[in-house]
Amino acid sequence: MALFTGVIPPVVTPLTDSGELDTASYERSLNRMIDAGVDGLFVLGSSSEVAFSTDARREEIIREAVRIVGGRVPVLVGCIDTETNRVIEHAKTAARLGADAIVATAPFYALGGLKEIERHFRKIHEAVDLPLLAYDIPVCVHVKLPPALLVTLGKDGVLAGVKDSSGDDVSFRFLTQDNERAGHPLTVLTGHEVVVDGAYLSGADGCVPGLGNVDPVSYVKQWQAYQKGDWEEVRALQNHLTDLMRIVLVTQGLTGFAAGIGAFKTAMALLGVIDSNRMPEPVETLVGDNVLAIAQQLQACGMPPVVDPATVGTSIYAE
Amino acid sequence: MALFTGVIPPVVTPLTDSGELDTASYERSLNRMIDAGVDGLFVLGSSSEVAFSTDARREEIIREAVRIVGGRVPVLVGCIDTETNRVIEHAKTAARLGADAIVATAPFYALGGLKEIERHFRKIHEAVDLPLLAYDIPVCVHVKLPPALLVTLGKDGVLAGVKDSSGDDVSFRFLTQDNERAGHPLTVLTGHEVVVDGAYLSGADGCVPGLGNVDPVSYVKQWQAYQKGDWEEVRALQNHLTDLMRIVLVTQGLTGFAAGIGAFKTAMALLGVIDSNRMPEPVETLVGDNVLAIAQQLQACGMPPVVDPATVGTSIYAE
Amino acid sequence: MALFTGVIPPVVTPLTDSGELDTASYERSLNRMIDAGVDGLFVLGSSSEVAFSTDARREEIIREAVRIVGGRVPVLVGCIDTETNRVIEHAKTAARLGADAIVATAPFYALGGLKEIERHFRKIHEAVDLPLLAYDIPVCVHVKLPPALLVTLGKDGVLAGVKDSSGDDVSFRFLTQDNERAGHPLTVLTGHEVVVDGAYLSGADGCVPGLGNVDPVSYVKQWQAYQKGDWEEVRALQNHLTDLMRIVLVTQGLTGFAAGIGAFKTAMALLGVIDSNRMPEPVETLVGDNVLAIAQQLQACGMPPVVDPATVGTSIYAE
Amino acid sequence: MALFTGVIPPVVTPLTDSGELDTASYERSLNRMIDAGVDGLFVLGSSSEVAFSTDARREEIIREAVRIVGGRVPVLVGCIDTETNRVIEHAKTAARLGADAIVATAPFYALGGLKEIERHFRKIHEAVDLPLLAYDIPVCVHVKLPPALLVTLGKDGVLAGVKDSSGDDVSFRFLTQDNERAGHPLTVLTGHEVVVDGAYLSGADGCVPGLGNVDPVSYVKQWQAYQKGDWEEVRALQNHLTDLMRIVLVTQGLTGFAAGIGAFKTAMALLGVIDSNRMPEPVETLVGDNVLAIAQQLQACGMPPVVDPATVGTSIYAE
Repeated sequence: MALFTGVIPPVVTPLTDSGELDTASYERSLNRMIDAGVDGLFVLGSSSEVAFSTDARREEIIREAVRIVGGRVPVLVGCIDTETNRVIEHAKTAARLGADAIVATAPFYALGGLKEIERHFRKIHEAVDLPLLAYDIPVCVHVKLPPALLVTLGKDGVLAGVKDSSGDDVSFRFLTQDNERAGHPLTVLTGHEVVVDGAYLSGADGCVPGLGNVDPVSYVKQWQAYQKGDWEEVRALQNHLTDLMRIVLVTQGLTGFAAGIGAFKTAMALLGVIDSNRMPEPVETLVGDNVLAIAQQLQACGMPPVVDPATVGTSIYAE
Repeated sequence: MALFTGVIPPVVTPLTDSGELDTASYERSLNRMIDAGVDGLFVLGSSSEVAFSTDARREEIIREAVRIVGGRVPVLVGCIDTETNRVIEHAKTAARLGADAIVATAPFYALGGLKEIERHFRKIHEAVDLPLLAYDIPVCVHVKLPPALLVTLGKDGVLAGVKDSSGDDVSFRFLTQDNERAGHPLTVLTGHEVVVDGAYLSGADGCVPGLGNVDPVSYVKQWQAYQKGDWEEVRALQNHLTDLMRIVLVTQGLTGFAAGIGAFKTAMALLGVIDSNRMPEPVETLVGDNVLAIAQQLQACGMPPVVDPATVGTSIYAE
Repeated sequence: MALFTGVIPPVVTPLTDSGELDTASYERSLNRMIDAGVDGLFVLGSSSEVAFSTDARREEIIREAVRIVGGRVPVLVGCIDTETNRVIEHAKTAARLGADAIVATAPFYALGGLKEIERHFRKIHEAVDLPLLAYDIPVCVHVKLPPALLVTLGKDGVLAGVKDSSGDDVSFRFLTQDNERAGHPLTVLTGHEVVVDGAYLSGADGCVPGLGNVDPVSYVKQWQAYQKGDWEEVRALQNHLTDLMRIVLVTQGLTGFAAGIGAFKTAMALLGVIDSNRMPEPVETLVGDNVLAIAQQLQACGMPPVVDPATVGTSIYAE
Repeated sequence: MALFTGVIPPVVTPLTDSGELDTASYERSLNRMIDAGVDGLFVLGSSSEVAFSTDARREEIIREAVRIVGGRVPVLVGCIDTETNRVIEHAKTAARLGADAIVATAPFYALGGLKEIERHFRKIHEAVDLPLLAYDIPVCVHVKLPPALLVTLGKDGVLAGVKDSSGDDVSFRFLTQDNERAGHPLTVLTGHEVVVDGAYLSGADGCVPGLGNVDPVSYVKQWQAYQKGDWEEVRALQNHLTDLMRIVLVTQGLTGFAAGIGAFKTAMALLGVIDSNRMPEPVETLVGDNVLAIAQQLQACGMPPVVDPATVGTSIYAE
């Protein structure tokens, strides 16, 4: 049986204008996604500001998510840190706070090889009694997890699944095929919100779309259409979502996290889902023309802002 | 006045065979370096297993170093983590435990730009009342710190120095020249133990050589020769040290951290400086032929092992 | 009107055991693909050994292709060289020899920027009166062609199409969407044989699959299924082709071109399409166990070899 | 005996404003370098626009260089192309036109491994009866030549030397040490004009500085100081040259080849060495403020322009 299938958005973490966790906005956003019919929620992934959050903040993010969700859907928790022992500590915290599964990347910062990566996942699995998903995200950790290793770890019961944010659709196809032949030990999820339809055609068991924070309903509808084999509907919904994803392309002067999660937060603020598009230190919060550009793109995609763009965004650099 | 000049080895962290901090070995190693005449010690750098150490272990490493050193030389402490707020927490801990300076890299894991990097260092400086050195290590954080940014932060009093492990000697030369013209606000240190002589010719204020854990005396002599302008002696000592550095090249089947720090630890164990060459999880400890190869290279460099190679190294993978 | 749509394999260049162009094998292979129903043939692409072929050999490859094809399908010719003026010379040769279109990459070897890339395509277009397709292949030229630039060049009549071998399916989706909105000036083709189904879902106008040299019929059937909207058939054929593509994964000790084109040539030799799997200097020809492994994979995919594996492959390194 | 030692600038190729080879300027520039005391000249390297030059232009560049030099110093000729057979053709042309040595990179564009690279150099050596130097330039060919391979090829008589433009000073130090121990079969030259002093300390046999086109005298003086062991003079000259190299940093809006060779050509035009700073297609020629910035930097380095900056530079993009 495949666990954690369907639409599982990586949850954006709303902050107040002073940089604290905005619990009220968090609650609105999580409830909106659950009401839309998502199959799970993934907190403390890259989108969730895990790299920017102190341990105390990480605990707060987990605790509040578990409280708000209240068992309606599974809560997956990212345990992202440089090496094994640090990850295990996060994993134990997640378990203690009520996580349903944990998600870990390959080690990063210090250099290693595949041997170390394999042992890393095995040691985490030994240490914590929760399903473990591998997070394949070379853009952050600078190594690609090979399909053969992932399937071996699946067959050995170490990994329950994979979140693939590798950007390598060829490797993804080999992974789903290898996994199928091995008896489908892994739940294989795509993190690429722009081409979820292709991932379904490749045999993905679900998706983890950051853009699902902005438009959860369309991803849920797309999953349902996929379950019915209605590929033209899958594709049409994807075309809408791809267009909506242009909120990350219409801004100017932003890089990396600011461009991506900054656009998601800004769209969510414009749609009234969260109160502020505040970004964590040291990332600039989107302001002015960038907010306007996103508002226009939302409008163009049939999701008109309900909040005046002029009221969204205060630069932390202006403080 | 330039602070933190001369030879400041990044301290290797000795572990017991069960993976605990080996305090007795740590004491022998630190004392040996201080006796050799080093000008400072840098703990919790990449070499020091910072990425592999839990927060509790990090505290232990700092506390013991400060206790052992007892003010004989300055103790610089690496505060290495993904983003600003996490780094600031480490920096406050370092300050509380008696660090003389802190060392921080650019943010990593989450992607950003130069604007975020600049703010990152400024926020750390604001938060902690200790000299701050930037650690330029693109192989780990995947961004190069530009000389212009470093010198600006130096002139603004944010940075006291730079540890350059960038592998970019051209950029290093521009940095030392820019720094000189700006009134030398930064202490510029090279982390490349194989070409310290060239770095001195380029105007480096000192070095942070991992290999200094194995042979601190030669680096101290080289620094002294440089102070006297005896370039042929500087060069001759470098040739010895470069040859000694081949301990990281003579092994087989190792990658990254295992190949580098693994070789240092093994050499130190063979020289009787530390009791075990144990590596942190999930990194393989060097055993068998790899230990022998390092013993032979030590011998060839006039540093014969005092410990039987057959007694060094137990694979964590065999457990 | 979209030109050059459908299945357009990049033609593998068969060599004799002494390294000459094997015209008889070439004829068999091209006729087999045309008989299978391909919509065009692309010679002197990366797969076609363009980088390994002298100018005289390149001319021979074009001349023979044009002669063999005899107008049955369009012949697209790769004009691959470091910079503009060298490419223009190749393009003029291609035009003189009867090419129906030319295909060029971004400049490579010497470093440049987007401004130079744009001018590069404009100058080629000015110089040669044939449709020009851009070949987006960052793995070879180390730059990605941005969708916005490609669509601009399409609207300006500079480019007639794009062969996308970028491995970036997210960018590909934005490209097809941008192209559609601009009135579809570009024929957008995917070069990734493992995920052609996803590319069709994304709106690709066709494919340029190297694996089409081995199994042209399945790619043609897949295209026809796509034209009918039969997505399950598109997907089933892709699953077969993805499995067949494993001929490039089952070998040992090979890198890059040897692993990829070497496997295609070996499979073609085993299937009796070409006489020899000889590779161009300095690339090793597949022999022994690697030939056997490919034979087994062909068998597993329902394409049993008709030639004894023991008779295929002579190492150029053994000469 | 070490061949091709000392200062061997990679010759910049002057063009007329219409893009033809400017023979008169070429003559002035080559004579100026020979008069300054250089030990050889390297034509058709990266700096020499080899990637931008058609075969006819390449022949012209060689023929004119051989004619102008007239045997006063050796002429080394770059034979830069994607793969072995293409390089061999260039090498035969170079031999026919009177080259004293040939210089070749690893294969590029098509992917390969070390096995192919080794065979590549061996086949070139077999084909042409001239000393062969390896050109280690990963920024262009995207592979680093390992010291062990280079020294093996040196001992086997395949390679006579190495031009190192790898930017890897650590590897360079291991190379010079390996080479020395093997009996110094290779002449090891550095291509990094900013840190030639460090390369000499590492044991380099000479340099191939692009900046030597602008200021050949200082590189010759530096070499002579090195021969006398006057390290402070070596260093002082390097400091001047490093500062002069800032002509490539003071411009705005340029990338890659335009920024580097464009600055050299502009400085040479300002110093009256060549008539025009014209760049090859599709690279922008430096104009306006960029010319002014370079003029100011020359002035600051004690090399005042003799040509009015306002008369230098016509944009090919304005045509």
